[in-house]
Amino acid sequence: MRIPKHIGIIPDGNRRWAEKNGYSKEMGYSNGLNPGLEIFKLCEKIGIKELTFYGFTVDNTKRPALQKIAFTEACVKAVKMLSKENASLLVIGNSDSPMFPKELLPFTKRKDFGTGGIKVNFLVNYGWEWDVLGLSSSDAHSRKNVYENIKSRDISRVDLIIRWGGRRRLSGFLPIQSVYSDFYIVEEMWPDFDANQFNSALEWYSKQDVTLGG
Amino acid sequence: MRIPKHIGIIPDGNRRWAEKNGYSKEMGYSNGLNPGLEIFKLCEKIGIKELTFYGFTVDNTKRPALQKIAFTEACVKAVKMLSKENASLLVIGNSDSPMFPKELLPFTKRKDFGTGGIKVNFLVNYGWEWDVLGLSSSDAHSRKNVYENIKSRDISRVDLIIRWGGRRRLSGFLPIQSVYSDFYIVEEMWPDFDANQFNSALEWYSKQDVTLGG
Repeated sequence: MRIPKHIGIIPDGNRRWAEKNGYSKEMGYSNGLNPGLEIFKLCEKIGIKELTFYGFTVDNTKRPALQKIAFTEACVKAVKMLSKENASLLVIGNSDSPMFPKELLPFTKRKDFGTGGIKVNFLVNYGWEWDVLGLSSSDAHSRKNVYENIKSRDISRVDLIIRWGGRRRLSGFLPIQSVYSDFYIVEEMWPDFDANQFNSALEWYSKQDVTLGG
Repeated sequence: MRIPKHIGIIPDGNRRWAEKNGYSKEMGYSNGLNPGLEIFKLCEKIGIKELTFYGFTVDNTKRPALQKIAFTEACVKAVKMLSKENASLLVIGNSDSPMFPKELLPFTKRKDFGTGGIKVNFLVNYGWEWDVLGLSSSDAHSRKNVYENIKSRDISRVDLIIRWGGRRRLSGFLPIQSVYSDFYIVEEMWPDFDANQFNSALEWYSKQDVTLGG
């Protein structure tokens, strides 16, 4: 089976899951922690080289305070959880803003944990415009230069993006690295993660052709 | 029904259609002309404000010469066809390159045809990196500045992208204007266009929420 080198995860549907299950919206996020760890372990097992999680965005921080606290806490916990695994970990986003959790500042330079291994990127207080504005006042003039000058330059091209929660959109996820990505949508909400969903995505991906726009 | 202001069309599957119907690959493109005009008329009828067609890309120009000639010709014909309608027409792409058809140079400034009306953008020899490199050596520092400095600055945010031919990817289509777009995939090939496919896309879109990443 042809497997992707780099998978992007959009773990959407936490709030809808909470409401459906009789909780208040902000209660959904903590239920997204275990799915993240499960995906990491599945990727490790099948030999995925790089994995990027969409934590939270600058756009998301306009939500009510209770939700903001809850998703920030969930991201901090997720990163700490991943730092107990064998991974080369990087947290990336606008860390100059007060919205960026201080506890994650030590993770804004890539670092090997355990024996290192799979590259894991975690987007925290990430903004698509923040990212591409890396090009401004650069002298970039080629595709290679674009990849080198965006702020997320340490994240490579994404082969497969899997989005939970049924929405069919990128919502600002890495606009440059995703120009050629294949998108797979899981209808179930992220806290209802199941390994079968992930396996179906991989199976679907293995049947796609890779043209890189050609 | 909530209708999109701006629809992007990725008319894929021309070559697969040709092969399936016993023609050589390059024969598919000319069969994509009528579908384009049909979509234009449907959009006009229901009051869509802006419509963008993915003509051909810099990536596409790496294909065999016969195909290159065929898709370039189809784009020239399509633009000329649209210029007989009531539309405010713009052809956009890297027109400094020899790959850009000279016949379309007069269309690289937006111009009203007939009584004007719906904005129609046609991407010709378009490259995603060419587009975002508009940011390089600018002093852009905000989201608004990003929209103003990319080369496709005259094209607004896309609400709905409809792709024919079953692939679930953007293939470099307007990375900045599509960060919040909803994607709808039609399994049929573009030359097998049918108004029902378009109507299903609109119906699906009307049930999506608009969050702009919030």
